[in-house]
Amino acid sequence: MKKIYMDYSATTPVKKEVLDEMIPYFTEHFGNASSAHSYGREVKSALTKARGQVANLINAKENEIYFTAGGTESDNWAIQGVAFSLKEKGNHIITSKIEHHGVLHICEYLEKHHGFEVTYLDVDSEGRIKLDELENAVTDKTILITIMFANNEIGTIQPIKEIGEIAKKHNILFHTDAVQAAGNIDIDVKELNIDLMSMSSHKIYGPKGIGALYIKTGVKLHSFIHGGAQERRRRAGTENIPAIVGYGKAAEIAKNTMDEHIERLTKLRTKLIEGIMENIPYTRVNGSIENRLPGNVNFSFEFIEGEGILLMLDMLGISASSGSACTSGSLDPSHVLMAIGLPHEIAHGSLRLSIGDFTTEEDIDYIIEKLPGVIEKLRSMSPLYLNKIKEQN
Amino acid sequence: MKKIYMDYSATTPVKKEVLDEMIPYFTEHFGNASSAHSYGREVKSALTKARGQVANLINAKENEIYFTAGGTESDNWAIQGVAFSLKEKGNHIITSKIEHHGVLHICEYLEKHHGFEVTYLDVDSEGRIKLDELENAVTDKTILITIMFANNEIGTIQPIKEIGEIAKKHNILFHTDAVQAAGNIDIDVKELNIDLMSMSSHKIYGPKGIGALYIKTGVKLHSFIHGGAQERRRRAGTENIPAIVGYGKAAEIAKNTMDEHIERLTKLRTKLIEGIMENIPYTRVNGSIENRLPGNVNFSFEFIEGEGILLMLDMLGISASSGSACTSGSLDPSHVLMAIGLPHEIAHGSLRLSIGDFTTEEDIDYIIEKLPGVIEKLRSMSPLYLNKIKEQN
Repeated sequence: MKKIYMDYSATTPVKKEVLDEMIPYFTEHFGNASSAHSYGREVKSALTKARGQVANLINAKENEIYFTAGGTESDNWAIQGVAFSLKEKGNHIITSKIEHHGVLHICEYLEKHHGFEVTYLDVDSEGRIKLDELENAVTDKTILITIMFANNEIGTIQPIKEIGEIAKKHNILFHTDAVQAAGNIDIDVKELNIDLMSMSSHKIYGPKGIGALYIKTGVKLHSFIHGGAQERRRRAGTENIPAIVGYGKAAEIAKNTMDEHIERLTKLRTKLIEGIMENIPYTRVNGSIENRLPGNVNFSFEFIEGEGILLMLDMLGISASSGSACTSGSLDPSHVLMAIGLPHEIAHGSLRLSIGDFTTEEDIDYIIEKLPGVIEKLRSMSPLYLNKIKEQN
Repeated sequence: MKKIYMDYSATTPVKKEVLDEMIPYFTEHFGNASSAHSYGREVKSALTKARGQVANLINAKENEIYFTAGGTESDNWAIQGVAFSLKEKGNHIITSKIEHHGVLHICEYLEKHHGFEVTYLDVDSEGRIKLDELENAVTDKTILITIMFANNEIGTIQPIKEIGEIAKKHNILFHTDAVQAAGNIDIDVKELNIDLMSMSSHKIYGPKGIGALYIKTGVKLHSFIHGGAQERRRRAGTENIPAIVGYGKAAEIAKNTMDEHIERLTKLRTKLIEGIMENIPYTRVNGSIENRLPGNVNFSFEFIEGEGILLMLDMLGISASSGSACTSGSLDPSHVLMAIGLPHEIAHGSLRLSIGDFTTEEDIDYIIEKLPGVIEKLRSMSPLYLNKIKEQN
């Protein structure tokens, strides 16, 4: 059976060039980067190189990159680290309703157990926050604004530069979860007034279990993991050298191929959206067309359930998702789709197809060929749909 | 030049069988374990298998194993998680002066910023805590005892069963940092009354960047990393499947070869200790002979500096350490050696040689042949030593 992976937002395969770079660090150059002997020295230079590659991806300085175990740790570190560090100054955090759970749940935890107050900003129908609402939410107790760079479910890119300017104007730290964005679109942290930014390797063809937090020079926050003196005493734990080397290589490839990556994925995305919208009625595209991750497609099909769509696509060899992988298994409708104003029943009939570097035109053709039949079949079993048809006749 | 790695306590190479199991999960079976489609399902079963392998190593139940990014995260999670969870009940934690910094620094952080009080127990000259002192330290505010299983510098194994009994008697949670122990010696968490135990993969020939926290069924603590629903909603972040698979395999190998591993390493250790003690005067073995990790050797050579020893050994191709890799670069003498009562100048002249599965008899012979010359050379340049010789004549 044909197998088509359409879930690149959940995770990506490690590229061959990336794995090839990693392999020697498991067995031959296996030293602890903190060791003073030759085994330690030979991996320390690999660590430095990778830090530079990741820094270069976002126009940061090398010493502004701190490796973590992934995007969620980076989010937790940034938010809890700032909160605990500035709690004498204020206890108010501003975020949005469509953040990844790596942001939402640490915010909720700080509210529930540590006396913080969090404002969850609404978003418009495309999933973008409103800058005047952000401005109005600022109080003299606000210590942190944390708004994601691009949404993992609907791909909407936020007005990051404008948010950064508001944060700067009020002298508030600005963190952004760029797990989906960093490596998929151009990011210049200096130009965008970003103080803290979370990134992940496995979303850009690097290994899992490694990510980074960008911390602008001069920004102070409590450490999250306390112990050894690694990462300039800010993040303890033996450096995960093979994964760091892989992340560095993946970042380098992403940087060097950014323009063609964006162009290619955007073209496939456009073809998929047009092909589906032309062939399946009662369908909407969620998120913004203009401000959108190149590889993200998110549809809502009226009258049916997302679970059924996924199941039938899976039987056709197509791997897709209804939203975030991190919340799969939950029966609640997506908090993102609810926040952009979809009614419960329509949010339930949603499908995310995320395109990546190994997606081909033939894959897109196959989906455009097969998906209409899937939707039709499911609708033919849906009382909601049958009532609609009856109404019309 | 001959290259001899004698720093297995810092980190170990990934065994070939382990890496072979990991490789397919980087490229072919790369799915997100939280995804509902076929790519997700095929890795979910690998996750379950690895969890069982790690559980089996310490006689835990599969659902008592939670994967983390490593030993330090596990330590931080256990200690901060219990502290924040039980802060209404009490604010007192008991630990020892010879813990790894992954324990000490989170304890200090909780003292400094979150209102906790920590008792740091003394140890005897072999590095073991005194049970009556532990008992006396318990107050009605004590919520956690955290004492390491085996020390990373001097290899001393604590009276864990007795500590577990004291904790149980007083209804206090007991956490142990078993990063050096789990996989190197037999551990049965049920028999030992352990509530929480930290473990690491890269100390037992598995990959870096992965570890586990054993949480006994029924033990409640706050999550450390908040976000997606991974690890039964207790530890968020995309599962690091290749590393988890590798850790599982490493744990399985450790379990299956435990007896011969212990016997072989203990024999090499004995040979090394005897060979050095016979050939180098003014030398002491730090730590306990009886209650000691099989692969750990730690000497103090009077009159000289550890740094000089390491440098000269490095030039002879021998990679060793003065203590913990996590604190290398620091000029302070080891807190562990100070705690067992060594004077500053003797603590400074210490050397850890840690033996592992790839160490051969020939390696040990080579060290016994070369080390006396190194020490003699350094002493010949030491005013302290020359004074001593003068005194004697």
